Amino acid sequence: MGYQTARGTYDVLPSEVNRWHQVEDLIQTLCTLYDYKEIRTPIFEDTSVFKRENDSSDMVNKEMYSFQISSDSLTLRPEGTAGVVRSFVQHKLFGSMEMPAKFYYVGPMFRYERPQKGRQRQFNQFGIENIGIKSPMADVETIALGYTLVKTIGLSSIKVLLNTLGDDESRKAYREALREHFKDHVDELCGDCKRRYDQNPLRLLDCKVDKDHPSMKDVPQLKDYLTKESKEYFEQVCAGLDALEIPYEVDQRLVRGLDYYTHTVFEVVSTHEEAGSQSTIFAGGRYDGLVQYFGGPEMSGVGFAIGLERLLLMAEAENCEFESEPSLDVYVMSLGEVGTMPLQVASICRAAGYITDLNFIERSMKSQFKSVDRKAAKVCIIIGEDEVKNKQVTLKHIASQNQKIVSLDEIVDTLDHYLNEEHDCTCHECTGE
Amino acid sequence: MGYQTARGTYDVLPSEVNRWHQVEDLIQTLCTLYDYKEIRTPIFEDTSVFKRENDSSDMVNKEMYSFQISSDSLTLRPEGTAGVVRSFVQHKLFGSMEMPAKFYYVGPMFRYERPQKGRQRQFNQFGIENIGIKSPMADVETIALGYTLVKTIGLSSIKVLLNTLGDDESRKAYREALREHFKDHVDELCGDCKRRYDQNPLRLLDCKVDKDHPSMKDVPQLKDYLTKESKEYFEQVCAGLDALEIPYEVDQRLVRGLDYYTHTVFEVVSTHEEAGSQSTIFAGGRYDGLVQYFGGPEMSGVGFAIGLERLLLMAEAENCEFESEPSLDVYVMSLGEVGTMPLQVASICRAAGYITDLNFIERSMKSQFKSVDRKAAKVCIIIGEDEVKNKQVTLKHIASQNQKIVSLDEIVDTLDHYLNEEHDCTCHECTGE
Repeated sequence: MGYQTARGTYDVLPSEVNRWHQVEDLIQTLCTLYDYKEIRTPIFEDTSVFKRENDSSDMVNKEMYSFQISSDSLTLRPEGTAGVVRSFVQHKLFGSMEMPAKFYYVGPMFRYERPQKGRQRQFNQFGIENIGIKSPMADVETIALGYTLVKTIGLSSIKVLLNTLGDDESRKAYREALREHFKDHVDELCGDCKRRYDQNPLRLLDCKVDKDHPSMKDVPQLKDYLTKESKEYFEQVCAGLDALEIPYEVDQRLVRGLDYYTHTVFEVVSTHEEAGSQSTIFAGGRYDGLVQYFGGPEMSGVGFAIGLERLLLMAEAENCEFESEPSLDVYVMSLGEVGTMPLQVASICRAAGYITDLNFIERSMKSQFKSVDRKAAKVCIIIGEDEVKNKQVTLKHIASQNQKIVSLDEIVDTLDHYLNEEHDCTCHECTGE
Repeated sequence: MGYQTARGTYDVLPSEVNRWHQVEDLIQTLCTLYDYKEIRTPIFEDTSVFKRENDSSDMVNKEMYSFQISSDSLTLRPEGTAGVVRSFVQHKLFGSMEMPAKFYYVGPMFRYERPQKGRQRQFNQFGIENIGIKSPMADVETIALGYTLVKTIGLSSIKVLLNTLGDDESRKAYREALREHFKDHVDELCGDCKRRYDQNPLRLLDCKVDKDHPSMKDVPQLKDYLTKESKEYFEQVCAGLDALEIPYEVDQRLVRGLDYYTHTVFEVVSTHEEAGSQSTIFAGGRYDGLVQYFGGPEMSGVGFAIGLERLLLMAEAENCEFESEPSLDVYVMSLGEVGTMPLQVASICRAAGYITDLNFIERSMKSQFKSVDRKAAKVCIIIGEDEVKNKQVTLKHIASQNQKIVSLDEIVDTLDHYLNEEHDCTCHECTGE
């Protein structure tokens, strides 16, 4: 077997990195347009940043890469929000930034799960956080940014699912209704659900094991327990999405896996047949209490996270188009004892902005032309012993097969001529006539 | 204290991220011009990928973040080369890629060292690897790429240090000469040096503890033990650097901290007074045996790694200029009961490519103008209840203080007019005359 990537991790090879660059460029462009600023938090944090009291999620309880270094308990970040909020408080950005503070992050996250298609132990997330104000318009802007990203990449089989968890008062009333409803069934549910019944019965609705249990029918609906304010808040979110012509479905079952959500929660899912059980493309919602938890003032936030591996998988399933990477402009060939001239010529081409590679070893012209071909170079520059003696090079335009002999000083002008215009030039140099 | 970044790690805040973007963009541009392709290897690997037999370096022996997850011993990558070579072999890229295979990587690395200025436990490296051929021209290209990066960023107080370790035969002869030289002094040297004396006496010359020990004077010089081939190889590297007009100094003491180097080794150091003991900006060299170690064919490689934190510190010390980040094009103000119109207007501006933010909460016009000011918006769009009724907005160009009332359909044309030309227009709309 030899040395392999660790289980659940993978390499992005040069042949695959191009679509990552394009997605990342698009993220940067969109976030700039929406006035979100990048923040970069460390790959690991003290475990307490991620493991919060009363957090009943699997992510925190079962799936973290935690380790001890001298007296510190550290954890590879399983998600991005906690680090961003920790940083927001640590650097007192609530005092120095214009509110709402609008952040985005892109980078690797780590969860110790069973790897499967679209789910790796090291995976990449893009996320945004809008912190410091509570406004349904901010919720809408958040959804709109994610939706625009997914649509711009070209996904069409997608659906926005929307729900509200209401405010504390709404959820308290609902939790009681759920406990009442499940009271006589809790013994029949899975171990996780038994725990959830006490800790946070909303999460019973999230359970993949018990989803077909009879008690899951006719469950009380949160919408019947919302306060007037919570209802109005949600109506404004819906109105905002309508105004931006973002289609959505209200899904009462959407309660999200993390415990700090309040009011709006949403998921964007793929409806494509290849999505299977991994259909969620991105998910998020409004959260309360997190800024306070980290020692900051009482402030609300809203955000989402997109798993980029899954996004790329769905882009592939839907045959979304990515630009191909730029090919070589110039390949510098060398034949015989030519000393340092190939390096000089390559350096001249690169300084002028042309993508250039060169031959490094002694080999035949035929073999070097194969490299020109495989690398799809647009021009090759041939340097032999005669060229070195005369301080000239032979420059050949591959598509037209035209070639000319030029001095070092003339290389850039010639490349400008061959490469910066559509090459249907009829001049003497180009046609050789 | 509250929650803090773990020791030796730090946040890149939105106010600081701009220079990271610029350095990363420059890296991507330069690597493209030199035909290096990005490769992304995981943040952690099986420990054996980094911890190789006979490796006497501190990095591997003392400074790794290693941890156990079930039966796997994993390590956060302390450097980039091992992962790249492991990937090169695992995916048999030596069979599918054009040789030399030219890779670059950018990202976080981890070493458990005492943190100090310019040295963090999580730090970022950019590196390149040119694998598959042995040619002095490849060594020169490698140095040239790094040197061009550093010069393009604007550093001027830098020096290229160059040396050769020769081939195996040269080093064997030299090691014997060193053992002979230090034979009577090894008991007076530090513990590390005692170990180095047996394992790899070249690294005695690297020791920071014993550098002033009398035996460090009149040490035998490697150059006197080089084979003819090694001498010629080095002369060609020097000739290549001369041809590209890259100034360098040959430094006999340069032996590099890792054990797999052969032939060319180099460092680019800062000579700026603020550099202090952390003067190395980048370092690298040619290596043998690494591809084979990972189970691939016998192939040589050459590469370097640049610590980006240190690069940015030196850029700051030398007052290198970075472009400022783009400021807001449009700020959308809202006064009174305006519903979803601000969201719609912001969406229109963003879709046309204008960087746009909007007001999310009820507050005075004065307070909103403060936001316009702090965010240095070029245009503000004012939406009040009258505007909503008439389906119009008031659009104000901040620099000229001109304003006009336009329909939603006219917003983009008006922004194009105000923002895409130098605004000294004397037309009716602009002057209001």
